[in-house]
Amino acid sequence: MKHTAEIICVGTELLLGNIVNTDAQEISEALSELGINVYFHTVVGDNPQRLKSAVEIAKTRADIIITTGGLGPTYDDLTKQTLAECFGKKLIFHEKEAERIRSFFRGLGNMAMTENNLAQAYFPEDCIILENPVGTAPGCAFESGGMHVIMLPGPPNECRTMLRSGAVPYLKKLSDSEIISHNINIFGLGESAVEDMLRPLMLSLENPTLAPYAKTGEVSLRLTAKAKTRAEAEELMQPILAKVKDILGDYVYDVDSAGMEDTVFRLMKEKRLTLSAAESCTGGLFSKRITDIPGASQIFTGSVVSYSNPVKTGLLGVPAELLADKGAVSPETALAMAEGSRKLLHSDLAVGITGVAGPGPDEDGNNPGTVFVALSSEKGAFCRKLNLGTERNRVRTLAVHHAFDMIRRHLTGLSVT
Amino acid sequence: MKHTAEIICVGTELLLGNIVNTDAQEISEALSELGINVYFHTVVGDNPQRLKSAVEIAKTRADIIITTGGLGPTYDDLTKQTLAECFGKKLIFHEKEAERIRSFFRGLGNMAMTENNLAQAYFPEDCIILENPVGTAPGCAFESGGMHVIMLPGPPNECRTMLRSGAVPYLKKLSDSEIISHNINIFGLGESAVEDMLRPLMLSLENPTLAPYAKTGEVSLRLTAKAKTRAEAEELMQPILAKVKDILGDYVYDVDSAGMEDTVFRLMKEKRLTLSAAESCTGGLFSKRITDIPGASQIFTGSVVSYSNPVKTGLLGVPAELLADKGAVSPETALAMAEGSRKLLHSDLAVGITGVAGPGPDEDGNNPGTVFVALSSEKGAFCRKLNLGTERNRVRTLAVHHAFDMIRRHLTGLSVT
Repeated sequence: MKHTAEIICVGTELLLGNIVNTDAQEISEALSELGINVYFHTVVGDNPQRLKSAVEIAKTRADIIITTGGLGPTYDDLTKQTLAECFGKKLIFHEKEAERIRSFFRGLGNMAMTENNLAQAYFPEDCIILENPVGTAPGCAFESGGMHVIMLPGPPNECRTMLRSGAVPYLKKLSDSEIISHNINIFGLGESAVEDMLRPLMLSLENPTLAPYAKTGEVSLRLTAKAKTRAEAEELMQPILAKVKDILGDYVYDVDSAGMEDTVFRLMKEKRLTLSAAESCTGGLFSKRITDIPGASQIFTGSVVSYSNPVKTGLLGVPAELLADKGAVSPETALAMAEGSRKLLHSDLAVGITGVAGPGPDEDGNNPGTVFVALSSEKGAFCRKLNLGTERNRVRTLAVHHAFDMIRRHLTGLSVT
Repeated sequence: MKHTAEIICVGTELLLGNIVNTDAQEISEALSELGINVYFHTVVGDNPQRLKSAVEIAKTRADIIITTGGLGPTYDDLTKQTLAECFGKKLIFHEKEAERIRSFFRGLGNMAMTENNLAQAYFPEDCIILENPVGTAPGCAFESGGMHVIMLPGPPNECRTMLRSGAVPYLKKLSDSEIISHNINIFGLGESAVEDMLRPLMLSLENPTLAPYAKTGEVSLRLTAKAKTRAEAEELMQPILAKVKDILGDYVYDVDSAGMEDTVFRLMKEKRLTLSAAESCTGGLFSKRITDIPGASQIFTGSVVSYSNPVKTGLLGVPAELLADKGAVSPETALAMAEGSRKLLHSDLAVGITGVAGPGPDEDGNNPGTVFVALSSEKGAFCRKLNLGTERNRVRTLAVHHAFDMIRRHLTGLSVT
């Protein structure tokens, strides 16, 4: 039987627009991977009457209700009380939880515990308590007349942690099969091109399934299989994974990568090579992305953000005549920046990025989105010319992605330009 | 009369968790500024039956319904049809809109228009068409028996634009008063400290109102006033704005700033000064943030990301003995980096940032979150020592905010450390 879940997020701060509802997205993603339908999300404020009405509606259209928020110690945290009432359950005091809360406050030393905090020790009868390793408010789950209710905390970090440690294992037990996913990471093709190339394959599939997702300048395919065991699920996916790679070729840059910088980091480490960068229009974004990774210093020596011509000539050694002759936004300058960075910053590879981030043209009349990305190594240098549109943030992000793509191709023996 | 709105976001991609519902957040924020209640958000897939049921429920608990999504040309874009049906309205073909769509495709030249695209020229009878300056699908708004319906496109960029250009003006007409807001930008105080300091003032206020919002390392206060005219609303706010500045002092860094980098950019431009940076643990994030601003090259000469000691000594001129003696993570190194950057990159001001981004300690045993931020100018140099926790992203963001804060304080004649 296929289950249907409804997500009810409780919090006035969501209705005021103070925060974005990332909890609903993360829970939806997890439910989708588990093969559970989601037909509705509801957001409701810290108001028991309105929460009650939302729960009554959800009961008519789902058999799993997952709530977030309202589990804390303050007077407006009423999710447990309200859900217990909706399902005719009493709230029971758990001495073990009370002791955990008291000991938490003893650990803080100087912070006095108020009686309110012990509200967190009451739970609906016959529920499973879900531990909160990153906060104080535990969650819980119960079954009532064939309906399942799971209550998670609101703060995204706590919700995410308990989703993985408590909710997903609970939901997996409702099914007698394992559901496993892989993300296929693609760069260089748009979402519609990927769909066009894979439509016959996607339509022919039932298990595993294959679905595309787009984010700025990248496309992912999620491949999901359901089977009795993990091994069987993996076995179902391998031929499809091979087929996708066969159809998309080297546009597939990795599987299950957290991003292009992570793939580049892994490849550079494997080959024990170092990297540096000279950035103009991206203004430090390439460096920021690679140093987002803990341990980046193993492969990254540094970079120069050359946001003025004197820095390009004086520091990176781009010849002044070249700048005057070809302009700051030219393949020659990008190549000279990459070469200069490789020598100045003592790295095996170096990228040089110059262009017009936009939204307007530059003083030389180059259109926004005109970007040159160069890669220099001992073996030679290559440059890509790009037209990336007029949206500043998108131009900068895509320029950085192209730099990562060139490095990835260089390191895996593919054609770089 | 106080209006109550319900936001209904239509899109299967939201229910699958492919994207986060930023539309609902941005619309909620706008409604909150307009003084309109929001009691529920609903998310529903591209399914007319379920959308219809969501609209019927919303009718019983709101007098304004705002939808997002489902306005495009594909077969599953059914929001206009469904809402028209729910309110007993016919769909009318608008020749002017059809011509706009045809001419859009003529402009693309090589892309053939299908008949589907003309679906976007049908609108519920007696509606106002809301133009879409950044996409192809227009929105619309109508009134029916005292209820107001506004339909906005789903893509966040289009939704945001039409919210401001179409929905907010429409909603303002429902009220006979003007509602105006200011954001008071604060750095250096946590949200709870701001609340503690301002609680008596906040509780005493009815019009204007004052509410705090937190994001990583920053707090904003939104001051909102309602009056017959903009001028009267402004007049109501001025004494409160002065009072807040009086209570919070120079922790208030600006009013209505898009961020600390924008304030620094404005101050630097006013004083016709230039800036550069030497970044270690922030790895380019400071440079990225300042170059997010179009026109940053007017004040920013460039930066060096010194992710290895040879770059610190060779390029920035940090003495090797100093590095050996005091360590890369020390106030002396931060100061030498800032001084080195100012000379190397020919700027009036320069920052130097060195520390441990985490999550683990560095090889010298410095704890994650230990960061030194230095500011160098012709008049001398200053350094801040910081402990910023263990979360890498947060450590890096806060280090950059402290650098901006030091520059802002320097430029406005305040004590920097």
